[in-house]
Amino acid sequence: MCRWMGWLGQAVLIDELLFKTQHGIVDQSLHSRMGAETTNGDGFGMGWYGAGDGPGVYHAVAPAWGDPNLRELAAHIESPLFLAHVRAAIGSPVQQTNCHPFRHGRWLFVHNGFIADFPVLRRDLMLAVAPDRFADVQGSTDTEVVFHLALTLGLESDPIGALERTVGLIEATAGEHGVGAAVQATFGVSDGTSLWAVRYATEGAARSLFASADVETVKRLHPDNPRLQRLSEGDRLIVSEPFADLPGVWQEIPEATAVCVRRGGAMEQRPFVPLVGQHDPSASLHA
Amino acid sequence: MCRWMGWLGQAVLIDELLFKTQHGIVDQSLHSRMGAETTNGDGFGMGWYGAGDGPGVYHAVAPAWGDPNLRELAAHIESPLFLAHVRAAIGSPVQQTNCHPFRHGRWLFVHNGFIADFPVLRRDLMLAVAPDRFADVQGSTDTEVVFHLALTLGLESDPIGALERTVGLIEATAGEHGVGAAVQATFGVSDGTSLWAVRYATEGAARSLFASADVETVKRLHPDNPRLQRLSEGDRLIVSEPFADLPGVWQEIPEATAVCVRRGGAMEQRPFVPLVGQHDPSASLHA
Amino acid sequence: MCRWMGWLGQAVLIDELLFKTQHGIVDQSLHSRMGAETTNGDGFGMGWYGAGDGPGVYHAVAPAWGDPNLRELAAHIESPLFLAHVRAAIGSPVQQTNCHPFRHGRWLFVHNGFIADFPVLRRDLMLAVAPDRFADVQGSTDTEVVFHLALTLGLESDPIGALERTVGLIEATAGEHGVGAAVQATFGVSDGTSLWAVRYATEGAARSLFASADVETVKRLHPDNPRLQRLSEGDRLIVSEPFADLPGVWQEIPEATAVCVRRGGAMEQRPFVPLVGQHDPSASLHA
Amino acid sequence: MCRWMGWLGQAVLIDELLFKTQHGIVDQSLHSRMGAETTNGDGFGMGWYGAGDGPGVYHAVAPAWGDPNLRELAAHIESPLFLAHVRAAIGSPVQQTNCHPFRHGRWLFVHNGFIADFPVLRRDLMLAVAPDRFADVQGSTDTEVVFHLALTLGLESDPIGALERTVGLIEATAGEHGVGAAVQATFGVSDGTSLWAVRYATEGAARSLFASADVETVKRLHPDNPRLQRLSEGDRLIVSEPFADLPGVWQEIPEATAVCVRRGGAMEQRPFVPLVGQHDPSASLHA
Repeated sequence: MCRWMGWLGQAVLIDELLFKTQHGIVDQSLHSRMGAETTNGDGFGMGWYGAGDGPGVYHAVAPAWGDPNLRELAAHIESPLFLAHVRAAIGSPVQQTNCHPFRHGRWLFVHNGFIADFPVLRRDLMLAVAPDRFADVQGSTDTEVVFHLALTLGLESDPIGALERTVGLIEATAGEHGVGAAVQATFGVSDGTSLWAVRYATEGAARSLFASADVETVKRLHPDNPRLQRLSEGDRLIVSEPFADLPGVWQEIPEATAVCVRRGGAMEQRPFVPLVGQHDPSASLHA
Repeated sequence: MCRWMGWLGQAVLIDELLFKTQHGIVDQSLHSRMGAETTNGDGFGMGWYGAGDGPGVYHAVAPAWGDPNLRELAAHIESPLFLAHVRAAIGSPVQQTNCHPFRHGRWLFVHNGFIADFPVLRRDLMLAVAPDRFADVQGSTDTEVVFHLALTLGLESDPIGALERTVGLIEATAGEHGVGAAVQATFGVSDGTSLWAVRYATEGAARSLFASADVETVKRLHPDNPRLQRLSEGDRLIVSEPFADLPGVWQEIPEATAVCVRRGGAMEQRPFVPLVGQHDPSASLHA
Repeated sequence: MCRWMGWLGQAVLIDELLFKTQHGIVDQSLHSRMGAETTNGDGFGMGWYGAGDGPGVYHAVAPAWGDPNLRELAAHIESPLFLAHVRAAIGSPVQQTNCHPFRHGRWLFVHNGFIADFPVLRRDLMLAVAPDRFADVQGSTDTEVVFHLALTLGLESDPIGALERTVGLIEATAGEHGVGAAVQATFGVSDGTSLWAVRYATEGAARSLFASADVETVKRLHPDNPRLQRLSEGDRLIVSEPFADLPGVWQEIPEATAVCVRRGGAMEQRPFVPLVGQHDPSASLHA
Repeated sequence: MCRWMGWLGQAVLIDELLFKTQHGIVDQSLHSRMGAETTNGDGFGMGWYGAGDGPGVYHAVAPAWGDPNLRELAAHIESPLFLAHVRAAIGSPVQQTNCHPFRHGRWLFVHNGFIADFPVLRRDLMLAVAPDRFADVQGSTDTEVVFHLALTLGLESDPIGALERTVGLIEATAGEHGVGAAVQATFGVSDGTSLWAVRYATEGAARSLFASADVETVKRLHPDNPRLQRLSEGDRLIVSEPFADLPGVWQEIPEATAVCVRRGGAMEQRPFVPLVGQHDPSASLHA
């Protein structure tokens, strides 16, 4: 139902990774190989850190493969940290306010997957959003509600912990409504310095998620790209679906796992365990 | 903040009233004379009764004056009862789910005006919507919430009464938040048989609203239009702003007033008085 | 490279054939089985005869599968003769002026296929368009130029003959530029009374094209559709790709063949033979 | 009719000039004071030099005042040289390929005004475009044809001379067709190093055009803007309409005049005199 990618590393023109790769995310918008849907043509978005305050976002309702503005922007915006997302809508309208990444302050958020029976759960989940954030929800996707729940539950001070509390809360709410297999998700989160990613499903196999093994991986992917050959150690890609089928190059992120990529290169990995009822509401005050 | 028009009468091609009139609503989208905003270029919509089940709706984010599809549809769809609306967004995004008319079953709803400090009131108003309707709210306008409140409060059995309860509830909610001058509105409602219209403001002058005086009015407006010269008694227009400046032709609907135009021609008028706490929740069950 | 369908018969709500069929054209927009491209998400259009003067057209740049207006219009417009088209752009921009059907007066025109090396041939082909039609070309597709060439060469008096002259002229022009395999096409044409269709390729296999065998075919396709069970003899569908895989129901139109479906039911078939230099320029004057 | 602006100077975030000015161009899109049309809501565009090869362009069909992507891009793209344009369509469709700036290689081109009776002249003007450029014309505006004529007549080696030849050719072509008052124009041109502007009308008053008098002008316009207070001498704005009504700050560019702003600050001015039949076709080879 969507594909996304994140880059953290040396500043690059976005199209180096969006258009110039083999089977990159724009190609995946037309022909995904591993997605639940093969076509992700219901809008797209990207968010990037660079010039100006906080991240910029570009959201469009056109399919990524045919939008001339996306090619222009990708070819003329340079960024050391960006997220891109192509969407396959499952129920909610194709409109810019439903396009990822969602943003709050310095934070960006993308999601591949869904909340089961979201129309049934929507009201209770919206009520769990901090009241002063309620009016910030502009679109009608499950993802935007997940993001505002996570913000409510401390995303800005503890991203993975907040997502564990959010998923726990969603699963508990779903349970109250008799809804099973509540969460199917890979999440991508950034504050402009680090890049977090989560792979998790309440039941069954989670959506795919991969990290580039290390900078040598990227260099092997683009042997003729002088810019990428100059990359320094620590540059890292997180992707829903590998850009190319080179064996050994991509490292699958295990199910029920969160990773954190830090500027400078380190990637940490830990289990992702939904939590219920353990939120200290003061946590977000420390963000 | 928007302009709208409603037609109830003999089946006409929609463009007879949308494009072929002097200073019609599409012209008002570019140059409104009486509106709070002179440009209403943030999307538009129309809803009509005719072939097929229930009303059809067409929503677009382009300005009405420049959308070739609107010209096509208006020139090729015939309807005895339709509503059209041009939008000047005040805060909420320009997207199809924010375009009027809103629809539920056989019902259409348009609005010119606003709920004061809507972001402050949005959560409480959404909580007052019937829980099983909560997920039906797809956009982010105040109007769509008003519509679902009115549906919750009995619109389908008593349109004007339900709107009186809805406005009362909004005013009461606003009062709790210290928000004054809560409602500024003209509303248009139809079920495919009758056309209701309301003009009301909590404080100050309400947005303008006019009814065509009688069928002779319309004939005088279009002396060279053979179709309109064939109109029978009872054809009626409700408009935010008169189509032309002919004195004597338009009848201003007084403030704090509701009108109901019935098929066959009768137009009834009554005071519009917001009500608080008088809703019999079983009312909507009888709809 | 697009998919299209045409209907001539009893007046039906367009969605009976656009959305309620098995593997109909909107489904083909997302998952074509027989097309050169599996995704036809670069805009779409429909043209229909009904209320109002001449055909109405609706053109949109969104993928057909996700456009709420298309569902609305199809469910509320009734027509005895319409053409629908989903587009896979190959080089030209996704914009409404590049969406089929193209229209001139009472005539509609759709195309699946392409002119080889169109950028190389565009100037010479545009010069062959009648000078007073030159400024009518609003978009940048090969199809619109083909249509205006055919209008120049007598489409309005002899549709198939004009298309034979047009294809001959294109092949001759291509030859002068050393361009081979000049034309790959199925064409659909209507004047509101008859429906013409052509299947032709300069070289190799032509794009697929099928006609429904007879009204019994349609009834078997929709055994539970009371409207369609009431169809009278002579109702006919022309489609790029069969709506369902029922053996025996669809009749493949042979290569290098033109068919004409007349109101009342007769379908005539004749060879399609490109002609060069045989146009009597006075022909179009008699249209 | 349209409004445009150009900036050449120190690198700035585009929104400093697009959104943060008094009566800037986005405000002019909604309420132009000096334009032939007061609303310029039929799409817009910007082109900028910065990261990546050549200029980037962003074209949108939405009104500039309501497009969230424009705000995002302007707030996150920094450029020392950019052009922005808001459009009031006069006859040609609202589509991205009709949005300014037009681009060829390193060159950007914007236009406020029109070619009289363009549909009558379009064919002859297109025939005067270099044949190998014919297929590059993707939209249907007069401006794009003017741009390709100017490229044909040497824009890349002598911008003002090429425009003088282009206007001369258009006036001569118009004369052959009995069309008077052929050209109404302000043009903006850049190659990424210099910024050229022309103000000219065949007959009557030309569209307005202004240059900022010198860097002190800009500083006085934005006394509280620390970035602009740091500007160095030579920063320059060219605008259809002054951003604010400060007397003495803007210098009107006289009619029939061309100016050239060079990097470093010099602004040269010369008469603009249409030329006929004086093009040395080898000129463009030296570009």
